[in-house]
Amino acid sequence: MDKSALPKDSLDQLRRQLAEFARKRDWEQFHSPKNLAMALIAETAELVEHFQWLTEQESNRISADKKAEVRLELADILIYLIRTADRLDIDLISAATDKIKLNEQRYPVEKVHGKACRADEYD
Amino acid sequence: MDKSALPKDSLDQLRRQLAEFARKRDWEQFHSPKNLAMALIAETAELVEHFQWLTEQESNRISADKKAEVRLELADILIYLIRTADRLDIDLISAATDKIKLNEQRYPVEKVHGKACRADEYD
Amino acid sequence: MDKSALPKDSLDQLRRQLAEFARKRDWEQFHSPKNLAMALIAETAELVEHFQWLTEQESNRISADKKAEVRLELADILIYLIRTADRLDIDLISAATDKIKLNEQRYPVEKVHGKACRADEYD
Amino acid sequence: MDKSALPKDSLDQLRRQLAEFARKRDWEQFHSPKNLAMALIAETAELVEHFQWLTEQESNRISADKKAEVRLELADILIYLIRTADRLDIDLISAATDKIKLNEQRYPVEKVHGKACRADEYD
Repeated sequence: MDKSALPKDSLDQLRRQLAEFARKRDWEQFHSPKNLAMALIAETAELVEHFQWLTEQESNRISADKKAEVRLELADILIYLIRTADRLDIDLISAATDKIKLNEQRYPVEKVHGKACRADEYD
Repeated sequence: MDKSALPKDSLDQLRRQLAEFARKRDWEQFHSPKNLAMALIAETAELVEHFQWLTEQESNRISADKKAEVRLELADILIYLIRTADRLDIDLISAATDKIKLNEQRYPVEKVHGKACRADEYD
Repeated sequence: MDKSALPKDSLDQLRRQLAEFARKRDWEQFHSPKNLAMALIAETAELVEHFQWLTEQESNRISADKKAEVRLELADILIYLIRTADRLDIDLISAATDKIKLNEQRYPVEKVHGKACRADEYD
Repeated sequence: MDKSALPKDSLDQLRRQLAEFARKRDWEQFHSPKNLAMALIAETAELVEHFQWLTEQESNRISADKKAEVRLELADILIYLIRTADRLDIDLISAATDKIKLNEQRYPVEKVHGKACRADEYD
């Protein structure tokens, strides 16, 4: 069966676009998982920075200007996340699906309802 | 037209699954963008931790055991990224698509070929 | 004048203790600034994790047990910060003193009183 | 005995300077441990960003210009670390001293010589 005939998922389309982006710039040499993990956390910190002095309530209703900036920070995080997964040959969607199943077991509704703790802090 | 009849994208399916997961546990009260940004960076740091003492070369060829762990860290990052975007009503795929266009302009092939700098460090 | 005759500062004592700790274990080979920056942010994320589901008010009055854990997270951050500075031959105290002077200019009392923004967001 | 007559440690001097800096600007209201932890990790990420595309070797011999920038990033990290500890009434030096003792037990020389793993990965 021809793989290219399958309907393509948007995340997979981004993955191929980003691989091409790096290849064209000869940036694959810099894109070790180690370096990409660093870039990923640096981008994530830019998201954190937007919210650090806001109350939780304020973070729920940010201005349109701030939202436009936050939107591009989220994009950067997704971009480096996809690159990291691609370099490690990991399928993000199947990984997340598996993790959600683990979380269903780890956090049964009746045990954790209305409580947010670290997994080792329940009971 | 019935929206539910449209082919569903895997990222959107995860988004709805995760919203349901939080709703069932009454965890929406904890899921402000501020808190989710903190959870997101905490998960990203667990990825970083896997690579901190490895050389770049070693990070390119991790063992199967380590890869299984890294796979679930990537899953956690994707999960909190989707939740953050959902609470802010931001479409991750369109955001990433826009950001890639910006990056095409910011990093023209002829300028950055084989060089990895911060955008303000080229020239 | 004999440098060792000068009164030793506690931060400098820790610096020498930590250098000795690494040397004895033959860990200097792993302690590049790149790797230490990764370890530093991984430790900082463990601090963040303690506060991610707490309200600000709750973070102001944590239990004795949680405080004991947070105390050791802060210690880890200081330890890697000192190691990073040491490997780069940077004096932390003089750096902080200089930065406070810059902040005094950047954030004049009359401009920022009662407002917390990123430097580029005032006015 | 008059406490103010004791020789003052540089870290404690910075602590008092920073408390005064925040007080004068009426910024104490923003300086909850939760918010300070976020600011601390955002600053730490700026350090990481300096090293993300460098090899370990390159991170060992950065230019004078880059070093001047890195120096101020380290200052920012120390500043927020001191503020966080101060708001939680934690003594950083005694915490680090205790943590080093724990590390001496956790990582005996004969067990970890020349190997850098996470504590749970030895043996």
